[in-house]
Amino acid sequence: MSVPRPNPLLSDRDVDFQLYEALDTTALCALPAFQEHSRDTFALLLDSTRRFAREVLAPTYRPMDAAPPVFEHGRVRVHPAMRSLYAGMVDLGLLTATRPPEVGGQQLPLTVHAVASAYLMAANLSAYGYLGLTLGAAHLLEVFGTRFLRDTFMARLYRGEWTGTMALTEPQAGSSLADVKTRATPAPDGSYRLQGSKIFISGGDQDFTDNVVHLTLARIEGAEGGTRGVSLFAVPAKRPEGDTLVPNDVQVAGVIHKIGWRGLPSLVLNFGEANDCHGWLVGQPGRGLACMFQMMNEARIMVGLNAVSTAAVAYQESLAYARERPQGRPAGIRDTTRAQSPIIEHADVRRMLLRQKAIVEGGLALLLTTSTQADLANHAPDEATRKRAHLLLDLLTPIAKTFPAERGFESNALALQIHGGYGYSSEYLPEAWLRDQKLNSIHEGTTGIQGLDLLGRKAVAEGGAALQALDEEVRATTARAHAAGVEPAWSDALEDALQQATALTLELGARGMAGEVDVMLRHSTDFLELFSVVAVAWRWLAQAAAAKEGLARTTNAEDTAFYEGKLAAAQYWFAVEVPRVPLLAHLCRTGEDSYARMRPDWF
Amino acid sequence: MSVPRPNPLLSDRDVDFQLYEALDTTALCALPAFQEHSRDTFALLLDSTRRFAREVLAPTYRPMDAAPPVFEHGRVRVHPAMRSLYAGMVDLGLLTATRPPEVGGQQLPLTVHAVASAYLMAANLSAYGYLGLTLGAAHLLEVFGTRFLRDTFMARLYRGEWTGTMALTEPQAGSSLADVKTRATPAPDGSYRLQGSKIFISGGDQDFTDNVVHLTLARIEGAEGGTRGVSLFAVPAKRPEGDTLVPNDVQVAGVIHKIGWRGLPSLVLNFGEANDCHGWLVGQPGRGLACMFQMMNEARIMVGLNAVSTAAVAYQESLAYARERPQGRPAGIRDTTRAQSPIIEHADVRRMLLRQKAIVEGGLALLLTTSTQADLANHAPDEATRKRAHLLLDLLTPIAKTFPAERGFESNALALQIHGGYGYSSEYLPEAWLRDQKLNSIHEGTTGIQGLDLLGRKAVAEGGAALQALDEEVRATTARAHAAGVEPAWSDALEDALQQATALTLELGARGMAGEVDVMLRHSTDFLELFSVVAVAWRWLAQAAAAKEGLARTTNAEDTAFYEGKLAAAQYWFAVEVPRVPLLAHLCRTGEDSYARMRPDWF
Repeated sequence: MSVPRPNPLLSDRDVDFQLYEALDTTALCALPAFQEHSRDTFALLLDSTRRFAREVLAPTYRPMDAAPPVFEHGRVRVHPAMRSLYAGMVDLGLLTATRPPEVGGQQLPLTVHAVASAYLMAANLSAYGYLGLTLGAAHLLEVFGTRFLRDTFMARLYRGEWTGTMALTEPQAGSSLADVKTRATPAPDGSYRLQGSKIFISGGDQDFTDNVVHLTLARIEGAEGGTRGVSLFAVPAKRPEGDTLVPNDVQVAGVIHKIGWRGLPSLVLNFGEANDCHGWLVGQPGRGLACMFQMMNEARIMVGLNAVSTAAVAYQESLAYARERPQGRPAGIRDTTRAQSPIIEHADVRRMLLRQKAIVEGGLALLLTTSTQADLANHAPDEATRKRAHLLLDLLTPIAKTFPAERGFESNALALQIHGGYGYSSEYLPEAWLRDQKLNSIHEGTTGIQGLDLLGRKAVAEGGAALQALDEEVRATTARAHAAGVEPAWSDALEDALQQATALTLELGARGMAGEVDVMLRHSTDFLELFSVVAVAWRWLAQAAAAKEGLARTTNAEDTAFYEGKLAAAQYWFAVEVPRVPLLAHLCRTGEDSYARMRPDWF
Repeated sequence: MSVPRPNPLLSDRDVDFQLYEALDTTALCALPAFQEHSRDTFALLLDSTRRFAREVLAPTYRPMDAAPPVFEHGRVRVHPAMRSLYAGMVDLGLLTATRPPEVGGQQLPLTVHAVASAYLMAANLSAYGYLGLTLGAAHLLEVFGTRFLRDTFMARLYRGEWTGTMALTEPQAGSSLADVKTRATPAPDGSYRLQGSKIFISGGDQDFTDNVVHLTLARIEGAEGGTRGVSLFAVPAKRPEGDTLVPNDVQVAGVIHKIGWRGLPSLVLNFGEANDCHGWLVGQPGRGLACMFQMMNEARIMVGLNAVSTAAVAYQESLAYARERPQGRPAGIRDTTRAQSPIIEHADVRRMLLRQKAIVEGGLALLLTTSTQADLANHAPDEATRKRAHLLLDLLTPIAKTFPAERGFESNALALQIHGGYGYSSEYLPEAWLRDQKLNSIHEGTTGIQGLDLLGRKAVAEGGAALQALDEEVRATTARAHAAGVEPAWSDALEDALQQATALTLELGARGMAGEVDVMLRHSTDFLELFSVVAVAWRWLAQAAAAKEGLARTTNAEDTAFYEGKLAAAQYWFAVEVPRVPLLAHLCRTGEDSYARMRPDWF
């Protein structure tokens, strides 16, 4: 019953618009780090990745979803397609695209890498997962590893010969990394022996490369409790001894049957059952979480990208479906001798499509801006710019992680809804993308944790310096929008909303300083939602400005249609979402206490 | 890894509160139709159903989800447990509980039947599905069938010997019943020969009873186009000839692989491939949709109940999990030598639980009120009361169908989220309930269709008479709340919100009369959302009043905790949801045109 049709995954027109019209990504090439690059070199990566995503990766999505990894005789066997898919992704240069030439990379902006990756994620989230995890592990070793670790582990990870994982979570600890119990005992050779159990280890075993390196949190014997006693270790599944690899006492203890990302195994791993699990310290003892958190922004941007991409591919599918599926006639037409109309003619279907567009393209814009701040934070030549970019990056990251995860799930549900009864069947793909999406509000810090991070740390950091920087950015955007002739009420609404958000932050920060931390943080999830609405409004205003500029320039009908669509989506966001800001602010400000005072036995 | 624990499905304390404290369900026994009944006879049905749901039905949920029906040799084989499960549900008397003694029933109020059914739905939605469909088909035959159809088909359906279906949807028509194409040709014996194809026929075949009767929409040869040419037929899978059943040329052409309700097959059926498919007219020719729509309110209430029940069982599970799962410590506590706290101690987890409670118990309250109006509409002795109740029933039905479906999906997602990574695995049940839930916004009229129904028909019917009746009901509730000492601001907010809704309805109705039907209906989904918030606020105010009355009465600590929880949930609704009403009204009133003017090629 399935009606296969080519799915663009993401709109190329939109991606180019976002990179080169709404943003000015080529401006990054003025930085010394990126001086070898240009729109042409960006295009080399983008074009090859897009083609691979569409032609090679996308067709493997359903087969991998339908045949998840198998756990047999202590080993995990993943989908056989993964061997060539992984090699293909490595060949695209994506493992090292943002890394410097010293480690074999091209030193491209993260912004460009992000948007290229988005195509792979949209095509096959699980397949990309192996690459993303490997990249994160290798990057940790690049920054914090000893020469031995860099030469032995990092190099092979970056070359695609091995894969990597993040082994943080334990069954008894979940999100609470302060409660990690895995132990590391110093050995005479300078390495450590690890013992403990980890859970939800994505890509924790596979059979398409020779080895897997687990970046593992553990406590050195005698270390203090809490987060400061936690260190980071590189623990390979097989350890190098001379020229061979020998088993390193890492056992797969079980496979978790995930409801999505079904091409990527999620495992329970036991370290050191035979007390022969060798690990190597990464960074300083007791600095394990600090090391992880240095990478956290990029990891969370990656989750946000996963979410945007999963929402994007479903949006594209439901858009194509709505254009070709005839059913009924628009409101007011009762003549049933008239042929049925494509469902895109129904106002409510267009509502569902425009809401998806607003979420997907607004989310992508947010992620690209955040990535650009990461590029500046890493590579701006002057420290003041780096510092300012870092503040913005820190502020935007929990939003860029959460907004696409939460609203993306809603967006994916709308894509399913547009397909009606067909959407409810596994003959069509929207249900699979909906399943994939649900993980993004859970992994790399749940939505609740992101809210605490935003309000408790990022927004109040350095006396609100990040908000000050955001205010400057927003004013630059409203000035641009004004010059381009964008509806002035939108700019006013955005400035007003940001002012409300800033005033609210100061107020809540003061309550925290006064010892009322629980009141301050009570509505941190609402606070995060509020900031998400504002941040996405900012990115929609920038897109509206670019669209107006484009309309003034173009005589091409297709371009005109594209820009008009951008303006309609911006209008939607300002009409439907921005007016929610005062309500959310009111909840945060008053500390509305319904669930705070709700005792566990009252439910 | 699964942690099985008894799940109460629904809270008995809450159900009793809803029936006998928030509502006065025993008052229905004053009606002649229910004069044989009392709280005791209600309890007989409720207690036996609850026990069956918990002890027999719930344990079959996961096995049936894991082993969906198989299509082989032209027949569907369902889970083997269904034979005894179906017999068990029939033995509870649920097929005929609301029907009069003439057809073997007890003539209980629908309100009581609804809440009893909710336990079965919460335990195993698919298993209940066979019963619900059979009940609907039998009821249609009872009301519109000839003596032959009642004696032959209806009686066997009500006795549980056969099952029934609703065969409405066709592949090319979906929601657009005006475009039904199945043909019915008169035969000399007074019956008809049917030819056509139907899709998404739930329970369209099974192997645990001898026969299935399809209540089928088709067009008598020569009938006019559109809805007025559609008639209703009873089409059995096997037709009675003398003392035997012979195949009736109904072919199962395919099974749809649904993502939820996996114990209940959804089929493609072909009628009359060999031109030997006999059907019998039900009701008048050309009145097929009218017949169906007479049953539609009850069918849609059933969908709302499905949705509430599916949200309820997940809420109960996540509540139990949050009480027992230790992880981290509440905001402000940094002492990691302190044992980890149950996650219910975290404010954001309590937010997710209270939001679920507000949706689940608010939704159940709405469904029971709506059912009570159905009881009055069917059985009040005087016509004025019946008519008023019918208006209210019509008004409330699209809300009672949609609110639990849409917000219930959100609620189910929160239940999964509370389980963290475990929630994302199929070792735990929240993911299965989330899948089940998604159908409820699609079947029996999508959310978009319910919005059109509410604004285009129900709210504006008879010059707004239904809104007038709702206003009287709301004022009775605010008076009760006032007397009980409920926070007066809530009553004021509710009255104000309803006034806004009423004024908006009149305004939009006037635009429709002026020929601007598209503008009137543009935001009908927002209009439905607005009315949902108001209707649920009404039911939360009634619950708050009952809770205050209870608090004044009780000295029992458990009761006190229960009532305090009700007040906190009511507070939540008035603080978080009711303030959205002006925003939604503004969208509807201004006819915000972002998606209306969005052309198909602008996306």
